This record gives sequence, C-alpha cells and structure tokens, in this order.
Amino acid sequence: MQVSLQINARWIITVDADDSVLHHHSLIIDDDKIIDLLPQNEASKYSPLNLVELNDHAIVPGFVNAHTHAAMSLLKGLADDLPLDEWLNEHIWPAETELADEQFVKDGTELAIAEMIRSGTTCFNDMYFFIDQTALAVSRAGIRANIGIPVIDFPTRWAKTLDEYISKGLAVRDQFNHHRLISFSFSPHAPYTVSDESFKTLQPIMDELGLSMHIHVHETQREVDDAIEKHGKKPLTRLSNLDLLSPDLITVHMTALDEDDIEKLAANSVHVVHCPESNLKLASGFCTVPRLLEAGVNVALGTDGSASNNDIDMLGEMRTAALLAKGVTKNAAALSAHDVLRMATINGAKALGLDEQIGSVTIGKQADVFAINLNHIETQPVYDVISTLVYSASRSQISDVWVAGKQLLNNHELTTMDESALLEKAKQWYGKIAPFHHPANKRGVK
Amino acid sequence: MQVSLQINARWIITVDADDSVLHHHSLIIDDDKIIDLLPQNEASKYSPLNLVELNDHAIVPGFVNAHTHAAMSLLKGLADDLPLDEWLNEHIWPAETELADEQFVKDGTELAIAEMIRSGTTCFNDMYFFIDQTALAVSRAGIRANIGIPVIDFPTRWAKTLDEYISKGLAVRDQFNHHRLISFSFSPHAPYTVSDESFKTLQPIMDELGLSMHIHVHETQREVDDAIEKHGKKPLTRLSNLDLLSPDLITVHMTALDEDDIEKLAANSVHVVHCPESNLKLASGFCTVPRLLEAGVNVALGTDGSASNNDIDMLGEMRTAALLAKGVTKNAAALSAHDVLRMATINGAKALGLDEQIGSVTIGKQADVFAINLNHIETQPVYDVISTLVYSASRSQISDVWVAGKQLLNNHELTTMDESALLEKAKQWYGKIAPFHHPANKRGVK
Repeated sequence: MQVSLQINARWIITVDADDSVLHHHSLIIDDDKIIDLLPQNEASKYSPLNLVELNDHAIVPGFVNAHTHAAMSLLKGLADDLPLDEWLNEHIWPAETELADEQFVKDGTELAIAEMIRSGTTCFNDMYFFIDQTALAVSRAGIRANIGIPVIDFPTRWAKTLDEYISKGLAVRDQFNHHRLISFSFSPHAPYTVSDESFKTLQPIMDELGLSMHIHVHETQREVDDAIEKHGKKPLTRLSNLDLLSPDLITVHMTALDEDDIEKLAANSVHVVHCPESNLKLASGFCTVPRLLEAGVNVALGTDGSASNNDIDMLGEMRTAALLAKGVTKNAAALSAHDVLRMATINGAKALGLDEQIGSVTIGKQADVFAINLNHIETQPVYDVISTLVYSASRSQISDVWVAGKQLLNNHELTTMDESALLEKAKQWYGKIAPFHHPANKRGVK
Repeated sequence: MQVSLQINARWIITVDADDSVLHHHSLIIDDDKIIDLLPQNEASKYSPLNLVELNDHAIVPGFVNAHTHAAMSLLKGLADDLPLDEWLNEHIWPAETELADEQFVKDGTELAIAEMIRSGTTCFNDMYFFIDQTALAVSRAGIRANIGIPVIDFPTRWAKTLDEYISKGLAVRDQFNHHRLISFSFSPHAPYTVSDESFKTLQPIMDELGLSMHIHVHETQREVDDAIEKHGKKPLTRLSNLDLLSPDLITVHMTALDEDDIEKLAANSVHVVHCPESNLKLASGFCTVPRLLEAGVNVALGTDGSASNNDIDMLGEMRTAALLAKGVTKNAAALSAHDVLRMATINGAKALGLDEQIGSVTIGKQADVFAINLNHIETQPVYDVISTLVYSASRSQISDVWVAGKQLLNNHELTTMDESALLEKAKQWYGKIAPFHHPANKRGVK
C-alpha cells in the first residue's frame, strides 16, 4: 500500500490512554493523518514515498502551547527584573501602545512561530491584536493555531469599541473559517478589563458560532482581592454568575483558588492553563496543579507571551511545571514527567476542543509530531524516555517537526520560513523598541 | 606584541565589580591568562597566533558549578518522580552500593565533564568517591575542579574507616597537589552522617594543609528537626559549636534557615551554595537567596548531581534560580539576571577561594571563558545581553570554551574528549544500571 511517509523511530511516545511507549516501531502517515503504528519489521506492507530513519530519536506528539501572545516575541527581555507594575506601566504597555501595529504583529508572530516550530510546538492558543496578521502568519508557516478574538473595554490600535472588537474579529474568522489549521475563540482579556455587559454581548455569539472563550482569570491574589472590593465577589464567581463556566471556557493562570473554586471548575468541566514560568517571573503566585488534576480538572500548559518568560519553549515549561509542583507541594512524587507531558499535549488539545484530531500519536489523528535526538551526552543513558525528555533534554535536540503530515522542520532547518530574514527583522525592531528598555539595566554598560 | 589568542566579540560580559558589558571589544589571551581587554579597533598592537572572530557572540566568564557529584551522571533519570525516601533507599543507594566502583566514577565523571564543557562550565566543586578517578578525568579533559575528599561515618566501596577515608583522600591530594587546575577540600557528607569526633579529627588537618570544607547542611527542615531531637541543636549550631563556621566552610542547600542562622553565616563569612533544581525535584524546601545576599552572605550556584536535577546545565540553573526567587518572595524584582550570573561565576570562585584567579573576565585572571552565539531566533532582539543569556538562551548556543587559555570546545566540538566513546560507554552502563530502575515507570511500555 502506497503511503506518503514512514518514520522508523527508536521510541514512539504515544501519550495515549496507557502512556504507551513503542520501541523500534514505524509511524505510517498518509497525507495529513496517522494511519498505522506497527513494529518496524512488520512495516514492509507499506510503500512510503518518503522513508525517514530516526533510530536515535523519540517521536512525540507535537506540543500544544495553550496560552501565548505570539507577537510579544519582539519584546522578550525588555526591562526584566522590575516590579510588576513598573514593568507593565512604564515599559511593556507604552511600547505596545506606540508600536504594536500590523507590522509588529506580523513580524513578532512570525518570530514566535519559528521559535515554536524549532521547539516542537505544532499548535498554539493565541491572544493578541491584529489577528488578521496572526492568521496569515499561521497559514503561511503551516503551523496549527486557535486564535483569540480580542475583547477589552478600552480602545487599542486594533479597535475602539466593543462592537468594533467583535466585528473586526468575526470578519477575520469568516475569512479563515474553513482553513484546516485555524480555529477561533473569543479572548476577553480578563474579568477586570471586561464588563458584565460585554460578556453578555459575547454569549449569544459564542453560542451561535460554537466558539469557546480563552481568558486570564485569577492571575494573582491581588486580582481576586480587588474584585471582591469592587464587585463584592471573586472573578470566578462573577463568571459563574454570568453562566460562563462550561467546557467552552479556557481559564489561564488561576494561581489564587480555594476548594470552592476548584469544585466549581471540576463540576463545570472548565479548562485551566498553567503558565509556571510566567507566574514565577511576574511573582503572580502558584497554581495548585496536582490538586486540580486530582479533582478531575483538565489542566493544560502554556508559556504565556515571550515578554514574561522569556521563551516559548514547551520542553522547558514542562520541566519547570514538574519541578515547581514538587517544591510547592513538598512532595517529590507530585506531577510526574508523564503528567506534564499529558498537560503539554493531549490536555492542551482537549482545552481547544481538538482532542479528536491532535494531542497524541494515535491512528486516525492528524500527523502533528516531532522527533528529538536523544543520542547526546546530555540524554544518555535513557531509563525512562519520558523522564529523559522532560528532565534532561533540550529543545535544540528537536530535529524534525510535522504538522498535518507536512514537514515544517527538516533536520533543524525551517522549511516554510526564512530564518535569516526573521533575524534581520528582529534586529530592525530592536532600534524601535530599545527606547522603552529600562535604563537601570544599562548600569555599567560601556 | 605576540600573544597566543585574540577573540573579537560582539559582547564581553565581564562580571566585574560594575557588571560591565563591553561592546565590540577584543579579549587578548597569552598562554593561560587574560592580558588585555580593549576596543577592537585598538587591538592592532597585538599579533595573535590565533584570531577568533565571534561577532554574533557574547564572551562570558566560565561557569563555576559550586556543587556536583559528577559521577552520578550515569544515574540521571533513574526512578524519577518517587517519594524521596523510596528514590534514595530503593533505587539510588542500592545502585551505588552495587555499582559505584572505580570504573563507574571514571565513566560517569567523564560523561559529566563533557556535559559541563558543552554548557560553559569551566570549574566544578565535586563530592564523590574514588577521587583518584575524578582527578585523572579532570586532568585528561583539561577542565578545572575542586575535588572533595569524602568523609562519612560508614563504610563504602571507597573506604571503610575514618582513617582510611582521610589517608586515601590525602594520598590523592598529594599526587595532584601541584596540578594547576586541581584543588582539594574535605567533603564530609552531612552533619547527620558525620560525628563530632570525625569533625574534630579533620580540623587540625584542614588547618595544617589550608583545606576548606564542602558539606551538605540544612538540606531539609526534617534534617533540622531530626538533629534537634537527636543532638538538642540544629546542624548549623553544631558546626558553630565545633568552631567550623568560617570563610573556609562551603555549605550546600541551606533550605531551612532562620534569621539567627543567617546572621551567623554572615558574621563568619560562610559560603552558601544554592541548588534550586535539586531542591525542587527532591521537594527539599526553598533557600532564601535574596535574604542571604542582602545579609552579605556569599551565595554560589550548583546543579547538584545529575540524578536529582537531571542535568548539569548552569545556564538553566541560573534561570531557575532567578525565576524561583521571584515566585517564593512574591517580588518580581527579586534576584535579577545580573545577580544569578554573579552567583554562577564570581561567587562560586569566591566560595572555592579562587576569586583572584577565575570568576570574571578581568586582566590578570586565568582565561576561563565561553562564547555563546546569540544570533538565533530564540535570542533576538537583545535589549540586555545578561537578561538574554539568563532568560532566553540555551546551552546549545554555547559554541566555544576555553580553560586556562586552552580551547576545550571548538565550534561545538569537544577537543580533549571523544564524544562517541562517551556515548558508547553510557549505553553500556545502561544494562548494568537499568535493573535498579522503578518498574512502575514501565507501565504501558510495550
């Protein structure tokens, strides 16, 4: 039987229901789909147009980065190590207000997509402005994305009023609605920047179009305290009263949760996205991931934007998530390598409603996978390949990436993007963005 | 003037007293020493035998990994994600008891040294057994090390009695005492495995030979509680009563400290080594680094052994230290990128008493430096090169490493070690070590 691609791999980490790891197996791909998984010595019944031998490599389901602001890639490292308010109010927001236009979103998103492809991310859940540029960049690169239609109760360069946010967003959705790699959500920024009235306006549109909602919630205890002072209730309670808690709600950060909140999330099948490095860098608090998983909540993993991380490396993010959970719960057995790999793949797919299509190496699913070479000093010996992947491997060992059967990274080379041109553009943006950098960091620079 | 080496670099991160970063400068090296630092356009007065152009790179002082058990590199990933007691008692210690012989230390240490060189570490502070093998491996590879003479109140494959620990250790010291890259400390394992009598035996030898002491202390609150129950006092108080608190004491972990402890450390110029990833992975607790620095304590950075990390990557360790401190102190301005770079370089050198020779790019010091290429998608634009190094860069971007003027990594290739042979040996050890792996992790493996 003729097929488009056969990959022979040392390990195939399936992330199926049993966490199966297949040794010396072949992954058979035809067009955009995985059509078989079988021992290499039984694979001769297939005649692949392309045969890839990866005998030092593990094949892994492509990462689903469940929370990004891709365009902010251009701001990574801008005014780090400052108190949160000063960083936001004096650096990040002024830079965005002045500079975050169509070109910024195009160039920043492309820089981010290149970084994501190079580190095994095959799908990202984005929240930013000028989403027409995001969709175009995704489409050109051939990566998969769920794009948030932004909503916020103040004017930005993208839109001035709620009506404009909605109409411009839906126009982009209409344009890309049949793109096989692109889906859309509504992305109201946060409960503290979006009014009850705005939420109520979105609801019937969400219902009619079958859109989910992707929102920052309970990022800090201060957000919760301020909301209680202002509204007399927690943000999550407000969303609950608005009847928004459902499997269509993707809540990001969630560092300040009590048992009552956790029960509500579990009872309503709300998804949580954990962003450990951003939460650490901005001193936002700790999301109680092991408790959420125990309660049956689906927890996915995200990097957040590059400005608060400062990378969009899901391999590193898994590692931080696993290590941090042990430290915070004082339990060395908390949140295993296997747990965080599920968060970074199938749980992200579930949050986006895409778990029938992606998130594991399963026959019938889309061929969104990457290969990582473990024959390195840093990753030998291998006792448990998932443990090696999470705790020892680096993203630079990722050699090949496929999305819907199309190879986007071929032996470390991007196939759909021009790396030199991206680097050149990043350097051009430096000149415009650097004036927003913090002078204190220049201490001692000659 | 003829010199051995001129490196032209885009940035030179000096880690001098002012945290100076030099742009488009030349680093002039003759034999083993840095002899000049000057603008590239003024460097024509030197005639280098070797001119290296690194115009996309930052030159950084080589990392000083202030706490390692290098040989344990062979155990990385063995039985991860288990409760601490089970991991130690049922996996790590049985594997060590059965297998940790001369050959294990030789092969494990070489694997670790290769990983260290590839990630910019030019000096490490080790604690393990069969230190003759450690010294030989260090000498062959050309890296710098401070080697701990192990002392523990029970028999191991290396030695049976206190006298034997001391005599075998001092014999190795005598053999390598004049090696320009090797120094020695005493490394009693921990206060709970070494008696007052043993400490008292070591003291006059330390004084006579000018040796420092490198020891695990206050790794967990439980260690402190157990000591109070057993001895009626905290381990640190015991060391204080033994008159061991001094600039010659290097204390590792220190997660359980009160203000009284911190005052004692500061008053006696005791060094602390922070190992954040090991502390997280083993759920040991949090070392209050910002408070220690504020109190004037010298805090260095270490990875600990590979089994509890699972890498020996100082770039990643800096990042974890900076992020974790912000999360734990709830202050996004805590422990900056600049702070953790000092911990990973000059502070480590200070702890080892080597700060006159290494730890910064300073005229007159040893030429222990590495080069990292920042012209990557992941590290552009660059607003603050130290921030980019700590928060965005990966070890795989490190291209070249010099120790005492000798190049140990040349465009990503090890010059003194055979990478293929190391990989082959690691795979051979897999067969012997795998029986000590945890069967639960094999769940689902086909």
